[in-house]
Amino acid sequence: MTGTGVGQEERLARAALTRLTEPGDETVGRWLRELGPVRLLRALTGQEPPPRGARAERLAGYRVRAATLDPAGDLAAVARLGGRFICPGEAEWPGQLDDLEDARPLGLWARGSANVRMWALRSVAVVGARACSDYGSHVAALLGAGLAERGWVVVSGAAYGVDGAAHRGALAADGATVAVLACGVDVPYPRGHTELLGRIAEQGLILAELPPGGHPTRSRFVLRNRVIAALTRGTVVVEAEYRSGSLVTARRARELNRYTMGVPGPVTSGLSAGVHELLREGAHPVGDADEVIELVGAMGEFAPRSRGPVVARDLLDSLAAAVLEAVPGRGGDTECVARNAGVDRDRTLAKLYELQALGFVRRQGEQWRVTDPPSTSGTPKPPGRRPAMRRGGP
Amino acid sequence: MTGTGVGQEERLARAALTRLTEPGDETVGRWLRELGPVRLLRALTGQEPPPRGARAERLAGYRVRAATLDPAGDLAAVARLGGRFICPGEAEWPGQLDDLEDARPLGLWARGSANVRMWALRSVAVVGARACSDYGSHVAALLGAGLAERGWVVVSGAAYGVDGAAHRGALAADGATVAVLACGVDVPYPRGHTELLGRIAEQGLILAELPPGGHPTRSRFVLRNRVIAALTRGTVVVEAEYRSGSLVTARRARELNRYTMGVPGPVTSGLSAGVHELLREGAHPVGDADEVIELVGAMGEFAPRSRGPVVARDLLDSLAAAVLEAVPGRGGDTECVARNAGVDRDRTLAKLYELQALGFVRRQGEQWRVTDPPSTSGTPKPPGRRPAMRRGGP
Repeated sequence: MTGTGVGQEERLARAALTRLTEPGDETVGRWLRELGPVRLLRALTGQEPPPRGARAERLAGYRVRAATLDPAGDLAAVARLGGRFICPGEAEWPGQLDDLEDARPLGLWARGSANVRMWALRSVAVVGARACSDYGSHVAALLGAGLAERGWVVVSGAAYGVDGAAHRGALAADGATVAVLACGVDVPYPRGHTELLGRIAEQGLILAELPPGGHPTRSRFVLRNRVIAALTRGTVVVEAEYRSGSLVTARRARELNRYTMGVPGPVTSGLSAGVHELLREGAHPVGDADEVIELVGAMGEFAPRSRGPVVARDLLDSLAAAVLEAVPGRGGDTECVARNAGVDRDRTLAKLYELQALGFVRRQGEQWRVTDPPSTSGTPKPPGRRPAMRRGGP
Repeated sequence: MTGTGVGQEERLARAALTRLTEPGDETVGRWLRELGPVRLLRALTGQEPPPRGARAERLAGYRVRAATLDPAGDLAAVARLGGRFICPGEAEWPGQLDDLEDARPLGLWARGSANVRMWALRSVAVVGARACSDYGSHVAALLGAGLAERGWVVVSGAAYGVDGAAHRGALAADGATVAVLACGVDVPYPRGHTELLGRIAEQGLILAELPPGGHPTRSRFVLRNRVIAALTRGTVVVEAEYRSGSLVTARRARELNRYTMGVPGPVTSGLSAGVHELLREGAHPVGDADEVIELVGAMGEFAPRSRGPVVARDLLDSLAAAVLEAVPGRGGDTECVARNAGVDRDRTLAKLYELQALGFVRRQGEQWRVTDPPSTSGTPKPPGRRPAMRRGGP
């Protein structure tokens, strides 16, 4: 998988813009479309005439922040964490974020060894109430584990409650999980999830639109949700009160033609009221990972078929090739593959999920197996854009 | 409300056929359409040539049972219980049963003072598991009471569990409730509900297709469900396992273009699994009486508008007229109306619900009020057939 490269000047400009502007600002998105990142940065920092129609207060704000810009420093900071900054058009850019149009992230700050694009292909968001019930955290953990065991990547927001339970369920099942934060990838928020975030950075991925050190605000939480919705094939809301932020994520997923799903709960529980509202709006009721996958796994075009690889084997990077080589003929668990490959467990896991997204291997329970080769010789075909999805499924 | 009368010969023939044949037998329904009840009875009892295509074993069975027929005795038995036998075409016949076509009941055995046709107009079925959880009986009772308080008639099957809780909820709220039995209206089944059935016969209605003394069988339970589905504007399933009989009722309701609704529950509970399956098939998730009424109360044509009467006041029977006269200008509870009218409480309640179906009065909580007269003089218009309903509402 090679992608269009992005020049260093554009990379620096996009990194700077993530510090200068707010995530999801569609006006900025429109300017970016008109001017490109390099000229937009100059226009917002006073080195060029301002964008057409830009209001004075807005520009004044940008000028103030401009003094603090140090994109090279930010890139170095994320690199020290073993991370990177991924720009649209690059090989690792998850193309489904393009559905956000002018609200598309300017770039993604990432920690973790997995390929963001590959992981996003087979991913589901599991979100819900921070102050969830025992029922909510129980179901979220089961969903996280169940999705992981079936080879799906669990995406959530790392918040207390449902989010944390979903991440933990996936981690405990030796699975792949992605935390999309409303702050910098180096900011341990919420505080009580410092250790969890550390585990996710090792075994999974941490993504953010904000540069290192960026702090969460109320509006950033809300806007973060659109990234979770866009990145995944569908969003499951486990528990949510009326007016909960999780409902925003689910409704955004629906607008983006992703599947929206809700876990029913007792009608006597206010923590399920928002979910039931969602169900009345047409979301699919789901109770376990099988039911989720039955929905989101149905599309042919978006996901590589589970029957065989969609790219030629010689296009794999050397680590992926080594991991694939290390999967025993009769199958083996992650530990066993890691040992065979002589690669550490977390990086092995990252590659295994990438290989699964590409159709080379398949996870069933604890076991990884090499997929049977397809009957045709299989023209390499990169995963494309998914077709419009509606309730009832394609 | 006057209807076409039915001659005594036809009444006796239909009553006899309810003992001779099984409920919901579509072959019998077709013969009935071809021959009419009097000739069909003769044909099945050997007094006339048998219906075309009737198989010998079937006819032999009818001949055996023919010896036990005593329709005049059955009519006398139900009369002794204060009941009656209602035939299609009569004023009290609930027209929505005609949607069952060849599976339409041959007639309805009824106990209770209320008018079946009137009560059915504003009715909802609440059904579910016999071995329900505390959650299920709690929600069923709340639904029963909530529907009753909003002037809706609660229809169910008098079984243990959800059915019983729904009936009890309605009774406790001084409401109207209908038990549709799979046995005779005089058979206390299940045994443990003898007292409940007695209360329903007094304050509500008991209906059956089987003649007095008829005993329930497995297939009669299943076929009884179609009557519950057809009689009501919609069916709510509170708790149901996979393959539960309540799901039959709900699916039958959907086939009949009635609303199907389900009460979500914990996905960890097998007693909610059937309900969630129903939701996945497109049933509406509901949690309380308001949500139910929001759906089923939306149609204009089927139900009289709540804004004013749909028949002229001088068409009311004398008891209904007396009860209407007794509703205080500022409203009053059932007790108060009964006192004013000098009529016993149960018959007053029956008439109040009839008057509500006709648009003369409205129940809100404990209070009955006379409906504001409509702004136009209001041409009398009998309640017609309801339009086709689908998910999403009409």
